[in-house]
Amino acid sequence: MVRVGIVGGTGYTGVELLRFLSGHPGVEVAVITSRSEAGTGVAELFPSLRGRFDLQFSAPDLETLGDCDLVFFATPNGTAMTMASDLLEAGVRVIDLAADFRLKDLGLWEEWYGMPHAAPELLPEAVYGLPEVNRAAIRDARLVANPGCYPTAVQLGFLPLVTEGHVDLARLIADAKSGVSGAGRKANLGSLLCEASESLKAYAVPGHRHLPEIVQGLSAACGRAVELTFVPHLAPMIRGIHATLYAFGSDDANLQALYESRYGHEPFVDVLPAGSHPETRGVKGTNICRIAVHRPRGGDAIVVLSVIDNLTKGAAAQAVQNMNIMFGLREETGLNLPALVP
Amino acid sequence: MVRVGIVGGTGYTGVELLRFLSGHPGVEVAVITSRSEAGTGVAELFPSLRGRFDLQFSAPDLETLGDCDLVFFATPNGTAMTMASDLLEAGVRVIDLAADFRLKDLGLWEEWYGMPHAAPELLPEAVYGLPEVNRAAIRDARLVANPGCYPTAVQLGFLPLVTEGHVDLARLIADAKSGVSGAGRKANLGSLLCEASESLKAYAVPGHRHLPEIVQGLSAACGRAVELTFVPHLAPMIRGIHATLYAFGSDDANLQALYESRYGHEPFVDVLPAGSHPETRGVKGTNICRIAVHRPRGGDAIVVLSVIDNLTKGAAAQAVQNMNIMFGLREETGLNLPALVP
Amino acid sequence: MVRVGIVGGTGYTGVELLRFLSGHPGVEVAVITSRSEAGTGVAELFPSLRGRFDLQFSAPDLETLGDCDLVFFATPNGTAMTMASDLLEAGVRVIDLAADFRLKDLGLWEEWYGMPHAAPELLPEAVYGLPEVNRAAIRDARLVANPGCYPTAVQLGFLPLVTEGHVDLARLIADAKSGVSGAGRKANLGSLLCEASESLKAYAVPGHRHLPEIVQGLSAACGRAVELTFVPHLAPMIRGIHATLYAFGSDDANLQALYESRYGHEPFVDVLPAGSHPETRGVKGTNICRIAVHRPRGGDAIVVLSVIDNLTKGAAAQAVQNMNIMFGLREETGLNLPALVP
Amino acid sequence: MVRVGIVGGTGYTGVELLRFLSGHPGVEVAVITSRSEAGTGVAELFPSLRGRFDLQFSAPDLETLGDCDLVFFATPNGTAMTMASDLLEAGVRVIDLAADFRLKDLGLWEEWYGMPHAAPELLPEAVYGLPEVNRAAIRDARLVANPGCYPTAVQLGFLPLVTEGHVDLARLIADAKSGVSGAGRKANLGSLLCEASESLKAYAVPGHRHLPEIVQGLSAACGRAVELTFVPHLAPMIRGIHATLYAFGSDDANLQALYESRYGHEPFVDVLPAGSHPETRGVKGTNICRIAVHRPRGGDAIVVLSVIDNLTKGAAAQAVQNMNIMFGLREETGLNLPALVP
Repeated sequence: MVRVGIVGGTGYTGVELLRFLSGHPGVEVAVITSRSEAGTGVAELFPSLRGRFDLQFSAPDLETLGDCDLVFFATPNGTAMTMASDLLEAGVRVIDLAADFRLKDLGLWEEWYGMPHAAPELLPEAVYGLPEVNRAAIRDARLVANPGCYPTAVQLGFLPLVTEGHVDLARLIADAKSGVSGAGRKANLGSLLCEASESLKAYAVPGHRHLPEIVQGLSAACGRAVELTFVPHLAPMIRGIHATLYAFGSDDANLQALYESRYGHEPFVDVLPAGSHPETRGVKGTNICRIAVHRPRGGDAIVVLSVIDNLTKGAAAQAVQNMNIMFGLREETGLNLPALVP
Repeated sequence: MVRVGIVGGTGYTGVELLRFLSGHPGVEVAVITSRSEAGTGVAELFPSLRGRFDLQFSAPDLETLGDCDLVFFATPNGTAMTMASDLLEAGVRVIDLAADFRLKDLGLWEEWYGMPHAAPELLPEAVYGLPEVNRAAIRDARLVANPGCYPTAVQLGFLPLVTEGHVDLARLIADAKSGVSGAGRKANLGSLLCEASESLKAYAVPGHRHLPEIVQGLSAACGRAVELTFVPHLAPMIRGIHATLYAFGSDDANLQALYESRYGHEPFVDVLPAGSHPETRGVKGTNICRIAVHRPRGGDAIVVLSVIDNLTKGAAAQAVQNMNIMFGLREETGLNLPALVP
Repeated sequence: MVRVGIVGGTGYTGVELLRFLSGHPGVEVAVITSRSEAGTGVAELFPSLRGRFDLQFSAPDLETLGDCDLVFFATPNGTAMTMASDLLEAGVRVIDLAADFRLKDLGLWEEWYGMPHAAPELLPEAVYGLPEVNRAAIRDARLVANPGCYPTAVQLGFLPLVTEGHVDLARLIADAKSGVSGAGRKANLGSLLCEASESLKAYAVPGHRHLPEIVQGLSAACGRAVELTFVPHLAPMIRGIHATLYAFGSDDANLQALYESRYGHEPFVDVLPAGSHPETRGVKGTNICRIAVHRPRGGDAIVVLSVIDNLTKGAAAQAVQNMNIMFGLREETGLNLPALVP
Repeated sequence: MVRVGIVGGTGYTGVELLRFLSGHPGVEVAVITSRSEAGTGVAELFPSLRGRFDLQFSAPDLETLGDCDLVFFATPNGTAMTMASDLLEAGVRVIDLAADFRLKDLGLWEEWYGMPHAAPELLPEAVYGLPEVNRAAIRDARLVANPGCYPTAVQLGFLPLVTEGHVDLARLIADAKSGVSGAGRKANLGSLLCEASESLKAYAVPGHRHLPEIVQGLSAACGRAVELTFVPHLAPMIRGIHATLYAFGSDDANLQALYESRYGHEPFVDVLPAGSHPETRGVKGTNICRIAVHRPRGGDAIVVLSVIDNLTKGAAAQAVQNMNIMFGLREETGLNLPALVP
């Protein structure tokens, strides 16, 4: 049994981690921390978990966390970097669901996240936790940076294209639509039902923090600098990301075959038959990224549709997938639930 | 008083036409037809209109319609073209909210709409009813082809750019998201709340009928062939279109000034201040197209955000705007309601 | 022209007041206050009002407000009572959209609202602004207490029954369902789209502040004490209240005729034909209360269905209706817009 | 392994049955039928099940179904009664998720369902499949009538009260709110997103088919005739039933203790602590009925809040629970998933 701790489990990625771990046969959740909710029972805060956990939230405490085999950070950006060193020294492995260890370039990180990094010495060691790219490195990693939600959908959608698709790497476009849970379980005006339902809007067009993360991943994959225009949108739904990706290239590559061969052995990437249109609800609550690739009317524009659930493959379930890899468990363990439809 | 007839008023564009005309001081709705609902009171079918109309639906009848000054067709594609000639001969002016007269190229129309055209001789005469482009011609038109919803949002968003923005006309992208009312008031599975809510998907990526309409409009505006990749999406909301438009061009044009000058005198196009992100709910129920233009991070990609309400500026209210122009009324008459927020 | 001030216009009742007043021919909005948004343009905060108001929010100031003919308070409970006296003395009439002057019983008010009342001397003078009950008194009132949203729907639904329906006054039940906008434009967790959509729940079953207000109104109407069980629910939509009312009585009164005769001359109460089921969207954005009355299977239980839009007939539009009455304007002025459907 | 057949698996109860059975260790789904979709792969129709079933829909065929141990009918009313006899004779046990065998009184059934019953001889044998009432009989049943969605929520909520709560059995009220999936996966206008979202309405106030089913169950439980007013409502969400139940009785019974003792050993009825308000999303996708009981302000009205997911405890999952009981499996098998929140 892997002894697991969760730091900061009161948000949506926290409750999703608990949902997956509650049905995971190889895991025991030993401790879950929250400063603000210390003393509250997990099932009091999340009645959907009644009867599944006896745990109470406790104040974060290095000693207790140090007894775990693995600690997940489901905290805001800037927390994991202050505690990771101590935990690693204590022999605890760490998966950060926030952004602290996602960028390799310290300057870039500090520019986009607007704070000094508290543990720059760990950046080289941290493994970017996208299993479809880094599976081997994740296996041995002490510290895994779980990818962002948009970066998961966009990178999985673009990877075959930028590595083997002969497309113009200077003109990539990712138009992504996310459900409101991407903004977290925080009381801000813009996430109110009365503000966000029955409406759709783009945001952060001048620049979003997930842009450098995606560019880092794609550039590394193809060995060249890529230029990406990334426009995120807020869609009036709880969960789901639909990334619509555009690239230009007139090569006659069989794109369908390219994607099928790239992902044929991946347990959690599902390439749809030619001509398909995935919908976000088809992967709701699952760890699946579902992809379709099109070349409309035989032109030189290629359109890739890539959908995930932002809270699962885009956060908690991918973290569990990384845990499974790190601890030598079957990669699908605990992650094999079908989507809830309708 | 303009004496108005409506053919096929049982759909969403029909009820919206009635909403606008009920408050229009210069109009009398004399007849509204529906084969299936003949004999039903308008307010029985649409309780939101109780107390506003004594009208009943009647079977379509050329004689009664021939007494009108203007007939709106709020019918499926393929109906207006069978009745327009007779009405025009009877001296009635016609606005078709469907697609029968939108394309100038007969072959193209028959290819995309999958039927022979019943009145090809009217195609040269029909005026494409986008007032921001064709105001003068609309004034004198006997037959107006009211634009499609996507084409309205996409053309208004792209026009300044393709005519004066020095962009690559071979690589235009329109990623558009529409509310479900775009599919009409028809009992099809995909429009059920249980199928379409809490989900988002692209559709018709291989080709959508609004593509040739947009391309025709943009090509005419700039005098050159444009190539457009157009991907429509179904978003989980009732109303609204958000078109996110991408073009490439490194010219140093002041895009903000370009848009403000192009639309400064337009009553229904609202260019937001630099850096803005319009939301669809901000124009809900109105005739306004709201636009913002960005050049993210100073690169060569330009992003234009263009939002409308698909049922109003994208259909019924634009039809009323065209009517106002045709009959010499103030263009804003009856169209000056603020959006309903929240 | 009635010179109007609005105190606290940054919430949903504020933006709705502005929407109605922007199209009202007899009103000039002279001042709108907000401590937190002082200096912000109205259309900056509410882009749906772009082009309609040049106003900026200003800090509340008795001198400026004192120049108005009428001041609306769209503030939280507890604000109007601190400023009303001064305004009344300055000759300004006041409509409070909050609860400060709704209860006649000071002790009851302080018990339910949990604070001492700052202007108990005004309670006797304040007129409860339900026009269908108090039209004459409203005409001459200096101070009007605009009813709560639930109390409007429940009282209008129950009034004919408790006054003339021979029902058991000790066993009235009001099961009411409200959209989330009833909670206001406040950043609290429970109103997040991710918390409130795709779910429904009762709340405040042990006791809700609108209970004493409803009981006061019904008891006054029938001259006897009534006992009411009131259960409010949060429904996953932006606007609308559906009150389902239950009473017991085996009298053979013609209930349909009773309701039609009671409300036949009311401009904003619409009694549906026998057998009908009103829906909240049918009155969305309007000042209408729509009612249907049933006696299922001829038993002794009577079921009344009463729907309003909580932000309009339940708040802002009813306040404008009261203003029209107070200033001798036609009661429908500015309130005659049809619902936005779909 | 229980060899299972499903007749009519193209609706929402069908896809939910498949979701639960796909993770059930003791079951093999051998055949799934649909006349209209014969030849279509299950995962083609329901992409959420990709990778989980190799099955195709086939035309219903008694021979193939006769090889099953158990056949679920997920068909419209009126189908199971035409096939049940033959299956029972072939030794197959049957669970009907529709209404064919729910009422014991043939005349009542034919009155409410508007057709002659095709197998009246089976009515006495059929066991009403509410495990919390009929567990022992279900164990040995050949034919189980799976309860309706509203009847499940209402009966579980009322049972302790009518049997031991000393309430007025002539004045029971059930005000129930259901998500739109209760109307099934059928293309009817009223279930469109544009018709059913952002609105709430009562329906069938004069009489709903679930009324006699509930009355039959409650009367049987307490041994006396009960009179119930039942008002169903359509709420703008996909899943969930919230039944708000009202009864009158001034007895000093400790209601909380009554409910806790009645349901303390039930695996799928969860009585919340005193003062609670369950929400439908807390049981979304699960087999749980969650209940809270209140006596507001110490009066003689009792309010019970009872929530279920209409597609699971209200249909498919309860059918699997019945199957587990019938085949001697642990009752929770395959049903132990937490709700998906948010």
